[in-house]
Amino acid sequence: MSALNTDLYELTMAAGYFAAQKTQEVATFELSVRRMPQRRNFLVAAGLQQAVEYLLSLRFRSEEIQYLRSLPQFSKVSGEFFEFLGKLRFTGDVFAVPEGTPIFPGEPIAIVRAPLVEAQMVETYLLSTFAFQTTIASKAARCCFAANGRPIVEFGSRRAHSPEAGILAGRAAYIAGCTGTSNAEAGRRFDIPVFGTAAHSWTMAFPDEESSFRSLQALLGESTVYLIDTYDTLEGARLAVSLGRPIWGVRLDSGDLSVLSRKVRRILDASGLNEAKIMATNDLNEDRLAELVSSGAPIDAFGVGTELATSADSPTLSAVYKLVELKRGKKTYYTAKFSGDKETIPAAKQIYRSLGRDLIAHYDECSNSFEGDPLLRPVVIGGELLEPLPSATQIQAYARAAISALPKDLHSLTREAAYQVDVSPALIALRDDLRASHQFVES
Amino acid sequence: MSALNTDLYELTMAAGYFAAQKTQEVATFELSVRRMPQRRNFLVAAGLQQAVEYLLSLRFRSEEIQYLRSLPQFSKVSGEFFEFLGKLRFTGDVFAVPEGTPIFPGEPIAIVRAPLVEAQMVETYLLSTFAFQTTIASKAARCCFAANGRPIVEFGSRRAHSPEAGILAGRAAYIAGCTGTSNAEAGRRFDIPVFGTAAHSWTMAFPDEESSFRSLQALLGESTVYLIDTYDTLEGARLAVSLGRPIWGVRLDSGDLSVLSRKVRRILDASGLNEAKIMATNDLNEDRLAELVSSGAPIDAFGVGTELATSADSPTLSAVYKLVELKRGKKTYYTAKFSGDKETIPAAKQIYRSLGRDLIAHYDECSNSFEGDPLLRPVVIGGELLEPLPSATQIQAYARAAISALPKDLHSLTREAAYQVDVSPALIALRDDLRASHQFVES
Repeated sequence: MSALNTDLYELTMAAGYFAAQKTQEVATFELSVRRMPQRRNFLVAAGLQQAVEYLLSLRFRSEEIQYLRSLPQFSKVSGEFFEFLGKLRFTGDVFAVPEGTPIFPGEPIAIVRAPLVEAQMVETYLLSTFAFQTTIASKAARCCFAANGRPIVEFGSRRAHSPEAGILAGRAAYIAGCTGTSNAEAGRRFDIPVFGTAAHSWTMAFPDEESSFRSLQALLGESTVYLIDTYDTLEGARLAVSLGRPIWGVRLDSGDLSVLSRKVRRILDASGLNEAKIMATNDLNEDRLAELVSSGAPIDAFGVGTELATSADSPTLSAVYKLVELKRGKKTYYTAKFSGDKETIPAAKQIYRSLGRDLIAHYDECSNSFEGDPLLRPVVIGGELLEPLPSATQIQAYARAAISALPKDLHSLTREAAYQVDVSPALIALRDDLRASHQFVES
Repeated sequence: MSALNTDLYELTMAAGYFAAQKTQEVATFELSVRRMPQRRNFLVAAGLQQAVEYLLSLRFRSEEIQYLRSLPQFSKVSGEFFEFLGKLRFTGDVFAVPEGTPIFPGEPIAIVRAPLVEAQMVETYLLSTFAFQTTIASKAARCCFAANGRPIVEFGSRRAHSPEAGILAGRAAYIAGCTGTSNAEAGRRFDIPVFGTAAHSWTMAFPDEESSFRSLQALLGESTVYLIDTYDTLEGARLAVSLGRPIWGVRLDSGDLSVLSRKVRRILDASGLNEAKIMATNDLNEDRLAELVSSGAPIDAFGVGTELATSADSPTLSAVYKLVELKRGKKTYYTAKFSGDKETIPAAKQIYRSLGRDLIAHYDECSNSFEGDPLLRPVVIGGELLEPLPSATQIQAYARAAISALPKDLHSLTREAAYQVDVSPALIALRDDLRASHQFVES
C-alpha cells in the first residue's frame, strides 16, 4: 500500500495545514452514503478490515516523498513538511459499524477522529475501500435472497475492476451470504471456501470430451463437476452418466438454463445418478436467479460472476467523507457544508437501531434517552487496534442475522421499500445554527 | 502480485494437465471481447503493461503452495506437481495490439502462446487486467470527444472499485486522452500529470472562507484553485476576486454548472480577473459534458470522477480468453467452442486494418495478400520482453492518432455506428471443419 494512493489534493491540503500551523487540531470526519443506489433497499457495510490495515500501516517511503518534492504544487513547501511527512503515522481513532451491518443513506459507516492532517489524507483510500466492498456486499445480499437458500459461489474475478478488486469482491460477496468464491487468493487471505473444477479449455485440450471427463474425474473424484456444454449440453450429460463414476455433478454455462436443467436432470435420474447435482452459470444476476428459482428449474447451486463482482446494475455508491467537527485546544467547532443539494449535518454521530427504525443522534447525547442498540463502536484508539477484527466467516454469521432482522419488505428484489431514519432534534438544531452563521459553531 | 490471484479452476486444471502428462503441449489462447458494450462504438485497448509485469514476475511462493496443498480439491494431487509449481515461470510468448489501439468485438487484444499449464493459469489475471483498463480507456475517449478540446482530469479514485483500481483508472483515462489524474500514486508510477488543490473540508477547517482562501493562495500561488461552493457559490466568487491575488482559477462542484459558470465568469471579468479559469466537477459524464459544452458554458476544464473511474453506464466488458490452438509434438490442433451463442473461431489470428475496415486472418496466412497494417505484434518471446514498453505519454500520443483515424461516425456519443470487421475465408473454413467433427482439426 502506497501512502501516495490518494488524491493529490489531500497532500496539498496536508502541506497547507502544516504551513498554517494546524497540525495540533483534531478533526472528526464521517464516512457515509448520500443516496440509496437504484434497486437497493439497504446497504451492507463492508471494508473495515482493509481500512484498518491501511491506517495502521500508513507510512511515506523516501521515494514517495521525493516524488512529491518534484511536483510543481509542492515547489513552495518547506523542507520541514517533508520531514514531518516521513515521520507521520496514523495516531487517531476509528469508530465504525461492524462489517455486515445493514445501513442506510446519511448514517455514518465509519468516523475518523485524528490530527487534521492524518484524518484528511486518508479520505480517498477509505472511501474507495468502504464504498467498493459495501457495493458488492449489498449486491450479494440481493442475489442470496433470489437464490432462496441455494448456494451461490462468487465467480467474477475475471470481470472485476482489476485483479485486486477481484479478491475483495470475493470477500464482500462471502460476507453478505455467498457460500464461497472462485478466487484462490481471496480464499487464502480471508479463509473463505474456494470452488472451481474446470473450464471449456480443459475439455478442448483433450482429443475428445470423454477423455477430458475421465481425466478430471481421476483428479477430483467425488468433487468432480463436469462442464457439459462445450460441444452439446445433452450429449455432454449422456457422456457424464455413461462414465458411471462418482461425481459431485455437472455444470451448465450456456443456453436456456431452465429448459436444459430439466432435460439434464432427467438424463441423470434415468441413469441412477439421482445424487448428482446441477450447477448453473452464465451471466446470472438476482433477476435471472429469481426467474430460475420460481420456474422450478432443478438447479442446486449457482455461480454468479460479472454482475456480482461489479454490481453491474448499480456499480457506484455516493460515498462521502465529510468534516463534522474540529477541535482546537479545548474548544470544539462543528462544521457542515451547505452547497447546492449536498448539505451535511455537523458533529460526530451515533446510530441507534430498534424495531425497524434508526435514530441518528449526536455521539455524546445521553444514550439512555434513546431506544435501541448503538451501532458505531470504537475500533482503533490512539492508532492502536482495540481487539482483533472478526473473521470473514464470523462477519457472515453476524450479517445473516442482521439482514434477517430487517423489516421483511426490505427483502424484496423489485419493490423499493423505505426504512425510517430519524435525526435527533439536537443535531437538527446544531445544523440550523450553523447554516444561519456560515461559520463555525463553538461548543 | 500473488500467483493465487486467479480462479481456483485454473489451478485444478494445471494439476490435471500435469497428471495427464500434458505439460509439454503448447497452447495458444486468445483474449478478445464478445460484444460491444452499450453506448460504445469502439474500444481502446489498455492493460498490456500490467499484464506483462504479471507474467514476467509470476512465482508461487511457498506459503501459496502450502495453501493449495491444504485444499480438498488437491488432496489427491502428487507432490511432484507442487514441486513443479514452485519452479514454474512464464516461458511463453505474448502477441498484442499496442495499448491505445481502437479495437472491436472478436478481435484478439492479446494472444498467449505457452506451455499449456502456464497459458491456462494466467487467464483470470489477464482478463481482469485488460478488461478493466480497456473499459475505462473506452469511456475516457467518449468523455474527451464530449469535452471538445477542453482538458479533463480523472478524479475518480474515491469511487473506483478498490484503491488499486483507482490507480489503474488514472492510467487508462490518461492513455485515452485525459490530461491527468488526481491520483498521486498513478502520477508517480506512470509519470502522469497530477492535479488537485483543496476540498470543502479545507474551507471548513478555517474559521471563515476568507482565511481558508488566503492560506491556500499562500501555499500554491498562481496554481491556486479556490473551491467556491462550500457555503454559497457567488459569494465565494466575490470573495475570490476581492482578495486580488494571482490564482489559476476557481472550481464549481454543485448546482447548475451552466448558469453558475456564466455568473461566476461575469464576477471574475468585472474585477479584471479575465485570466482566471473556471473548472467544473460534480458527477459529470460524457452526456453532461456535451450539454455544458454545447450550452456555451464558460468552463475551461473539467474534473470527471465516479462515472469515468467505474464506466458507470457500461461497467463490464464481455472479455474472454479462449483456447484456439494446441501443439502436441509436431502437430498443431485447432480448437473451438460451439456451446449456445458462445461460438469461437479457432486458430491464432492477426488483424489487418485499412481504410476503416479490419480483416481477421489466420496468424500464418501470407500477409502479402491483405491490405493494411497488422495490429498484433510480438511483445514477449520465450518469457523475455522484446523491447521496453512505451510510456503512458507515448501511448496517449499513439491513441490520439489512432482514434482520430477512425471513421468519423464512430466519434458520435449518441449514435451507434458499425465498423466492418471481416473474417478470412480460411478461418471460416477451419471453424466449419471443426464444427462438423466436434473434435480437433489437425494441421
